[in-house]
Amino acid sequence: MEIEKYRELIKSIVEKHGQCDSDDLPAATLRDREVETQIAFDLERDRYLMFHIGWRGERRVFGCVIHIEIREGKIWIQRDGTEVGIANELIASGVPKPDIVLGYRSPYMRKFTELAVG
Amino acid sequence: MEIEKYRELIKSIVEKHGQCDSDDLPAATLRDREVETQIAFDLERDRYLMFHIGWRGERRVFGCVIHIEIREGKIWIQRDGTEVGIANELIASGVPKPDIVLGYRSPYMRKFTELAVG
Repeated sequence: MEIEKYRELIKSIVEKHGQCDSDDLPAATLRDREVETQIAFDLERDRYLMFHIGWRGERRVFGCVIHIEIREGKIWIQRDGTEVGIANELIASGVPKPDIVLGYRSPYMRKFTELAVG
Repeated sequence: MEIEKYRELIKSIVEKHGQCDSDDLPAATLRDREVETQIAFDLERDRYLMFHIGWRGERRVFGCVIHIEIREGKIWIQRDGTEVGIANELIASGVPKPDIVLGYRSPYMRKFTELAVG
């Protein structure tokens, strides 16, 4: 699969998770006291992110739920707070296992997976 | 100040912090066992981010250090792990206080600052 297909696939996966959670609200409808699901795509640096940001009463909520990047043709999953597992979704969409790196697993532990070490 | 100036200012502040920390390494020189400082700019959604990602031995490091966005003409600081304080840097660069929202402070507490409530 070419890089351009990887980019579109990653974007669609992140967008889907963003919508499952809640809509990525336009600025005008930001409800300040609630938790919002945000996506951020840096197309130049090939970084694809999803955040939870907001408030539950006086308690701050801030978390990066998904962080995926493309480095030298491989898809690095740096953060994955999804239930299904981004790697599983990529594999189900036809990405070969040697093109996927579980960045959140230590390089030592990656050796024991079928995925790439990096 | 117009939005376009805010964008350039925010980018230069985030880039500066990224460089203080360490260089934003190109993929080819990624040292897998060290901590890297990354920036990510979503120019379409006006989101400007900085991360620390990597490993200290077998210990995972993953943190969003800076999250800034522009919403309806105001600069929202959603995360600020800098020592100097992004708001101070913005003010020193001429951004009027009513254009800055400390998103990481609760809406209730924001009323007691000179900055915007949002």
